[in-house]
Amino acid sequence: MDRDRLLHLLQQVADGQVAPEGALDRLKDLPFEDLGFAHIDHHRALRQGFPEVIFCQGKTQEQVLEIAERITAHAPQLLATRTSPETACALLERFPQAEYDKIARTVVVRSPDIPAEAEKGLVAVVSAGTSDLPVAREAVVTARAMGARVEATFDVGVAGIHRLLAHLKSLRAARAIVVAAGMEGALASVVGGLVDVPVIAVPTSIGYGASFNGLAALLAMLNSCASGVVVVNIDNGFGAGYAAALINNHSAA
Amino acid sequence: MDRDRLLHLLQQVADGQVAPEGALDRLKDLPFEDLGFAHIDHHRALRQGFPEVIFCQGKTQEQVLEIAERITAHAPQLLATRTSPETACALLERFPQAEYDKIARTVVVRSPDIPAEAEKGLVAVVSAGTSDLPVAREAVVTARAMGARVEATFDVGVAGIHRLLAHLKSLRAARAIVVAAGMEGALASVVGGLVDVPVIAVPTSIGYGASFNGLAALLAMLNSCASGVVVVNIDNGFGAGYAAALINNHSAA
Amino acid sequence: MDRDRLLHLLQQVADGQVAPEGALDRLKDLPFEDLGFAHIDHHRALRQGFPEVIFCQGKTQEQVLEIAERITAHAPQLLATRTSPETACALLERFPQAEYDKIARTVVVRSPDIPAEAEKGLVAVVSAGTSDLPVAREAVVTARAMGARVEATFDVGVAGIHRLLAHLKSLRAARAIVVAAGMEGALASVVGGLVDVPVIAVPTSIGYGASFNGLAALLAMLNSCASGVVVVNIDNGFGAGYAAALINNHSAA
Amino acid sequence: MDRDRLLHLLQQVADGQVAPEGALDRLKDLPFEDLGFAHIDHHRALRQGFPEVIFCQGKTQEQVLEIAERITAHAPQLLATRTSPETACALLERFPQAEYDKIARTVVVRSPDIPAEAEKGLVAVVSAGTSDLPVAREAVVTARAMGARVEATFDVGVAGIHRLLAHLKSLRAARAIVVAAGMEGALASVVGGLVDVPVIAVPTSIGYGASFNGLAALLAMLNSCASGVVVVNIDNGFGAGYAAALINNHSAA
Amino acid sequence: MDRDRLLHLLQQVADGQVAPEGALDRLKDLPFEDLGFAHIDHHRALRQGFPEVIFCQGKTQEQVLEIAERITAHAPQLLATRTSPETACALLERFPQAEYDKIARTVVVRSPDIPAEAEKGLVAVVSAGTSDLPVAREAVVTARAMGARVEATFDVGVAGIHRLLAHLKSLRAARAIVVAAGMEGALASVVGGLVDVPVIAVPTSIGYGASFNGLAALLAMLNSCASGVVVVNIDNGFGAGYAAALINNHSAA
Amino acid sequence: MDRDRLLHLLQQVADGQVAPEGALDRLKDLPFEDLGFAHIDHHRALRQGFPEVIFCQGKTQEQVLEIAERITAHAPQLLATRTSPETACALLERFPQAEYDKIARTVVVRSPDIPAEAEKGLVAVVSAGTSDLPVAREAVVTARAMGARVEATFDVGVAGIHRLLAHLKSLRAARAIVVAAGMEGALASVVGGLVDVPVIAVPTSIGYGASFNGLAALLAMLNSCASGVVVVNIDNGFGAGYAAALINNHSAA
Amino acid sequence: MDRDRLLHLLQQVADGQVAPEGALDRLKDLPFEDLGFAHIDHHRALRQGFPEVIFCQGKTQEQVLEIAERITAHAPQLLATRTSPETACALLERFPQAEYDKIARTVVVRSPDIPAEAEKGLVAVVSAGTSDLPVAREAVVTARAMGARVEATFDVGVAGIHRLLAHLKSLRAARAIVVAAGMEGALASVVGGLVDVPVIAVPTSIGYGASFNGLAALLAMLNSCASGVVVVNIDNGFGAGYAAALINNHSAA
Amino acid sequence: MDRDRLLHLLQQVADGQVAPEGALDRLKDLPFEDLGFAHIDHHRALRQGFPEVIFCQGKTQEQVLEIAERITAHAPQLLATRTSPETACALLERFPQAEYDKIARTVVVRSPDIPAEAEKGLVAVVSAGTSDLPVAREAVVTARAMGARVEATFDVGVAGIHRLLAHLKSLRAARAIVVAAGMEGALASVVGGLVDVPVIAVPTSIGYGASFNGLAALLAMLNSCASGVVVVNIDNGFGAGYAAALINNHSAA
Repeated sequence: MDRDRLLHLLQQVADGQVAPEGALDRLKDLPFEDLGFAHIDHHRALRQGFPEVIFCQGKTQEQVLEIAERITAHAPQLLATRTSPETACALLERFPQAEYDKIARTVVVRSPDIPAEAEKGLVAVVSAGTSDLPVAREAVVTARAMGARVEATFDVGVAGIHRLLAHLKSLRAARAIVVAAGMEGALASVVGGLVDVPVIAVPTSIGYGASFNGLAALLAMLNSCASGVVVVNIDNGFGAGYAAALINNHSAA
Repeated sequence: MDRDRLLHLLQQVADGQVAPEGALDRLKDLPFEDLGFAHIDHHRALRQGFPEVIFCQGKTQEQVLEIAERITAHAPQLLATRTSPETACALLERFPQAEYDKIARTVVVRSPDIPAEAEKGLVAVVSAGTSDLPVAREAVVTARAMGARVEATFDVGVAGIHRLLAHLKSLRAARAIVVAAGMEGALASVVGGLVDVPVIAVPTSIGYGASFNGLAALLAMLNSCASGVVVVNIDNGFGAGYAAALINNHSAA
Repeated sequence: MDRDRLLHLLQQVADGQVAPEGALDRLKDLPFEDLGFAHIDHHRALRQGFPEVIFCQGKTQEQVLEIAERITAHAPQLLATRTSPETACALLERFPQAEYDKIARTVVVRSPDIPAEAEKGLVAVVSAGTSDLPVAREAVVTARAMGARVEATFDVGVAGIHRLLAHLKSLRAARAIVVAAGMEGALASVVGGLVDVPVIAVPTSIGYGASFNGLAALLAMLNSCASGVVVVNIDNGFGAGYAAALINNHSAA
Repeated sequence: MDRDRLLHLLQQVADGQVAPEGALDRLKDLPFEDLGFAHIDHHRALRQGFPEVIFCQGKTQEQVLEIAERITAHAPQLLATRTSPETACALLERFPQAEYDKIARTVVVRSPDIPAEAEKGLVAVVSAGTSDLPVAREAVVTARAMGARVEATFDVGVAGIHRLLAHLKSLRAARAIVVAAGMEGALASVVGGLVDVPVIAVPTSIGYGASFNGLAALLAMLNSCASGVVVVNIDNGFGAGYAAALINNHSAA
Repeated sequence: MDRDRLLHLLQQVADGQVAPEGALDRLKDLPFEDLGFAHIDHHRALRQGFPEVIFCQGKTQEQVLEIAERITAHAPQLLATRTSPETACALLERFPQAEYDKIARTVVVRSPDIPAEAEKGLVAVVSAGTSDLPVAREAVVTARAMGARVEATFDVGVAGIHRLLAHLKSLRAARAIVVAAGMEGALASVVGGLVDVPVIAVPTSIGYGASFNGLAALLAMLNSCASGVVVVNIDNGFGAGYAAALINNHSAA
Repeated sequence: MDRDRLLHLLQQVADGQVAPEGALDRLKDLPFEDLGFAHIDHHRALRQGFPEVIFCQGKTQEQVLEIAERITAHAPQLLATRTSPETACALLERFPQAEYDKIARTVVVRSPDIPAEAEKGLVAVVSAGTSDLPVAREAVVTARAMGARVEATFDVGVAGIHRLLAHLKSLRAARAIVVAAGMEGALASVVGGLVDVPVIAVPTSIGYGASFNGLAALLAMLNSCASGVVVVNIDNGFGAGYAAALINNHSAA
Repeated sequence: MDRDRLLHLLQQVADGQVAPEGALDRLKDLPFEDLGFAHIDHHRALRQGFPEVIFCQGKTQEQVLEIAERITAHAPQLLATRTSPETACALLERFPQAEYDKIARTVVVRSPDIPAEAEKGLVAVVSAGTSDLPVAREAVVTARAMGARVEATFDVGVAGIHRLLAHLKSLRAARAIVVAAGMEGALASVVGGLVDVPVIAVPTSIGYGASFNGLAALLAMLNSCASGVVVVNIDNGFGAGYAAALINNHSAA
Repeated sequence: MDRDRLLHLLQQVADGQVAPEGALDRLKDLPFEDLGFAHIDHHRALRQGFPEVIFCQGKTQEQVLEIAERITAHAPQLLATRTSPETACALLERFPQAEYDKIARTVVVRSPDIPAEAEKGLVAVVSAGTSDLPVAREAVVTARAMGARVEATFDVGVAGIHRLLAHLKSLRAARAIVVAAGMEGALASVVGGLVDVPVIAVPTSIGYGASFNGLAALLAMLNSCASGVVVVNIDNGFGAGYAAALINNHSAA
């Protein structure tokens, strides 16, 4: 172990076997991991109960399973995103306690010996139409996996602004809001103008023609005239849910 | 005159000087204008009181003046758009009765012997911020020059949706609505969702960064989830006002 | 019902059970729908005989059927666009009186107890080639479903300008014209230069290479040198037909 | 027949049944086709032996066959481009004398009673690699169908400039040169710098990544530093061959 | 006042002058502002001490001064962004107590009778080079104006990763981090991989050639492989500072 | 001189001083220019009377003058394009016989001892509006400098199709047609559909907003549905005129 | 053979059958290949042991096999890239000694009578994630086939910068480094900032949404703030490996 | 000094004042710079005689001078790129021994007490036209400042391929070649096909219209069909020269 090697070096200095100047030179050449930085990878999970994440798209079923095995060996919780139905089945077979959300295309594996923590704070997830559901639900699952309480509203759009206004009260109760919208992506600006909390806008690839697979919504959201709106990649429900939970958890701590 | 030449030919047929078959051959070779199609250019102005239009950008002051002279010789009304202050001054000097709108960058010249018609119907022009004013006012001036009654609201934006809702009644009274908006251009969708009349969305180049000089607003408007929203070119206040007046006038006739 | 709750509150004020100031506070917190805005969704259909619309693309057959059930429960007419053949079959099985247009990919369901209204006004739909047919016919079906009389011409293109000119008379009789064209989209400008009514240009994704799936036609149409041309999204035959019918119906009213 | 109608009208003028002024009015309203312009469509084929063309992509087998029937009824030659193997088979079954080029995806049908004309002039078609073959051969077939003698060289690329130089003599003998190249499209500039005749550059969609389906080659060709290079759409071998044959035939006449 | 009108209506109901049903009808037609929604505009400032903001770009000096007068009449604090030196001077002349940051192009006006609140929490602002300073400082000024304690580091870049690592401790102490970077924008990902708090990435237009005025950095940030990275518009230092302060203040409350 | 060196080598072979095999080896290493290829540069001018061309944009007045001196020393004709007024003056001062076209931004210098050749054939240059004039006239000047007879029509646009049709006869007499058009660039397709000769389409940067500095016209022209349309770079009047003259001269030879 | 023809000509000069001047004229007209330039194609392989390469994508199995036969007839080594599994099988059947790398999609065929050269120097290949593996391994295989010693590290990413730092020593030992990364492509800049040798950055198409199939990574890499970073096309692992080996071999020679 | 602090800690361990375990903990928290990594910045200059570089664009004259002072205090050589004439003058005034290249827009300051090293190896810099000179010369100055011998050829372009071929011998002698070209950027591919060494292609923004400020050349170069071609940012002559010198110096060592 690197820690051991470093400790051994320091012990040699303490024992007078290595002079401080010589130790200095050797310190500079030690790989960084030797200095303990490897803990960066795991401290999130350990300290905050955040899940480790596998982005399954572009990975084979075998690769996903292998990575899942490795993660669950030390981490209390695993979130697999963009799972194909086949990969999800394989995960469920291996981890019978896993929860599969077919629409969100996610699988969550929780260590059975870790009691479910109480969800805290409030993240609101809002989307415009049924087509945005997969992205919006990915945000929901992600934020929940990180310990946030989540309220989702999937049926509001700017062309029927009254439906949004009907949810105003609960939106204003949230500590962070995820807005998933395709087409013209205007929902983010409208929501942003109604609330005082950070709005994480996630453009979806829903649309056709000049939506250019979500580019229209992405640009609209980046140009939002409402303050407090920030943006993640097209269809990145995970990223939006993750950022919202980060914000929620800190302010709820 | 072409009409004369054609009539002359027909007279020759009537007089037996030219056989029908020979006339047929000569008819096919007459330039189209000879057949009377030249009236296409002028019939709008003559029939509907629509103005002739000069797009001044990219033309010299001399060119604009010369074209203005030619138009006012036969047309009752002239609309010059995108006038520089210098060109506007030159037009005002030549046509003292002209009306110059500095913000809209327009000059309107009306034949003095033609009484101002009563404005008819109602076109609503809505814009989001003071920066969109030049485009919105160009739409106002254009629609008015075409005989439409126009009501303009320049202070509504989606980030303060209540201000828009406060104008809902008057919006619903219009026969066509022009919405000028830059940045994310969401206003068009929100307005489109509240009314039953055609909404002509005109994206403006207001914004910076990823607005890409109005591209973001343009794409958003093209992808509007509200039915009845149609779009014109970026900053094309003239085109929006023109289309709105066309719709208004027909339904008001 | 929300209306009932509001009425109840007002009754309490009238009965002296609630003070006006207290009612004021509660009014502000009522969801908007409670204030009667929910009628926005339905008043179009009720007042104008416009159909409710389902955009089927990206929805499962089950979702479409379920939404269709809900809509037909209260609306006299339903228009389903972008239907797959399978979804269309399912709709036809459920609503035997429905009309399926295979090329337009539309299904129209009319309440049997509502007599077909006389079509009014005239919307012209023009397209350049057989490949643009699905988009053009979607515009035709939509405008008809909204009560407009529609004349369609599917065989005109700018490379054979005489064919277009041969239809000039009927074009000029229309109250609104839909022009569907792919490739270079020049047809919209040519038509726009020949008529006095609004032209709704709908670029189609027909083409290859530098057509970039309709972008070339879209840009061409947005830059039309003809006044009165407005544009909708690529392949958005529904939007073009809807806007044309809006214009037609108002001026025909 | 329109010609008859027009003649009849003139006869009425000659007979004194219609006054010249009355005839004038009716002339203006006759559809253009009535004036004989319908011959525009056919005069190319009739005068120059050019084939009528069907662009098969996006058309059903039935549609192609039907159009082919109509064309062959009056035109001596038919060129079908972008034929699928199935459509090609159907054409061959219907027109046993047709010639099918599988790589070029073309079918040529010649009227059996028209003797093959001698090919005239010289069009050179040059391409960089085997992947550009379909586009290059489409140009070859098209130019030949239009009566041009064609010499094709399919194995030259700028990364092996000596191979191109080895063909210099024959290139310089051509009256027009088609250069089909994907990737960086540099071949057009290199050829253009070596010859004195028009070079029609046709970018192909061959490549990957930042070729953006032929955009890189298209831009390169449009920016050619060699004079005399003109460009057609990506993969438009037909257009390149057509233009080359136009040039060749005129100079060979 | 709208509130008064509404109260008056309710009083009439209470007095039996207006029946509840009649009141219901009139309620629906009252503009929304009448229902008290106008407070949306001001409640942020009132409740949270957030400043009102003027985006000066594209506004004349006169317009900015006029808006500033109006805002300072009721709001305790004003933030003017993108001020030209001239506009800044005019503001300083009018509001002698204002603070002008030349690099950030901001002017902050605080009501003199409101004691400066203690700054709370910690927002870290990191930028890569001196060219990114204006954007980074705009974020700093904005976050401070909203009451956040801010630590800024302006000399770290990914090409000298050790400089960033040297600031790791203080980065990890922040509740939200703003990363401003142009060119390849990689700094956001590197920072995002080192911390557990939300990172607001703001691409700057610094660069040339294929930076396409910040597009390269924008895309890079949107595609960040680090979780917890969200993005605002190119050069939008204000938006980044605003969002960071929102997050910071909530978690510091 | 290289020719001399090569001749010397061959003489040595003839004299028996160098064996054929040895000569072979040395031949391979001689720079190509030594083999006589340097004549490529000049043979166009010498054989066809084509001018040498200086593209002045981005060159200093001194550079242009120096290159002009060098060219006129051996070439009978010089064409300078994209000349600033200052550079044009300098050229006129140095070459008093030069012809300066201010609109086309061209200067043509002809050797005084070479009698002006009779212009041959016919190139038609068509443009849509006065703003396209610089590009169209550059094409005119270029084609004339290459010996083509040129007829120019600068006032036709697709929004007034009858004006174009009025010129149909003269268009059909041309051997090549240049069409310069900005905005939607539809003119190229319309012209292309009316004639049997190659149409060289040159998109201009005239327009605003979604014209994207000529991109809209460029894409439209590349996607022309008319056969025989080829395209050059945006604003490349020189290239269009050059290609048109090449075609014209060959077919006129 | 061309060499023979040239030698024959020189022999004729030596024999006095052809005068030097006459030989000079005939030399100029000989195709370049006759002058020995055909060796350009082969001298790389002959002189440096570089493999001949077949880019299999877009070629049929038959074409690949035929080209492979031709190459292996004279070249000691063959590298086939972008092989489909089927094509790879066919190659392995024909060349049983071939090595197939399924992930890299490469097949290497070495002449059995040529002993494997010792690998020289050191090329490091670094990639960010398992999804970038195919591109990174293509670089590995290519560089090895060219004789370079290669060390590959496939598990480092900027979001876990410590893992990269742990490999710093070996990175610094390389003579050229290939960095394959998708998404935001930041790895190239980070590596470039840590080393003194050329870094060949190869963006991969890994990502989604605003990665635009590798465009985001491409732009990021082109804008790298680290000196010494050069870029190849998206997914062009071959090109990166080739360039790295070129650099490595020269400095190792 | 950090080194001192670290040494002090180790001395404390040696003295028994701090236990090895305690030292370990404190080591992990020391900023990295403390561990000696700050030398990364300077070791290039120290070890290889590479210059420190200031990118002057976007920096004030004062900023450049201040940074130059700081650098020259410890580094033997300074390269300032993208200097305005004013900044160059200021540098020359401060460092009279500096060398200013007006075309390249560079200033090089060498420490007077360091004898000029002999230039080593050979870097060839090739550009297509006089407009590309600034970029090409920036590459020349950069490579020379790094100790490379440089041969530059500024007058070759693909439209006159023989001029390039005439320089073939010297190109093949180089260890790395920089090719600067705008417009269609084909020169890189042609050069790449003729040589065996790495070609660093630098697209320039020279061109107009569809060159899109160098995008056309950039894409062409990225898609080069020649192996061994790598690319840097548009107009990045510095980066090209830097990479070429890196390659040259290593292979020349």
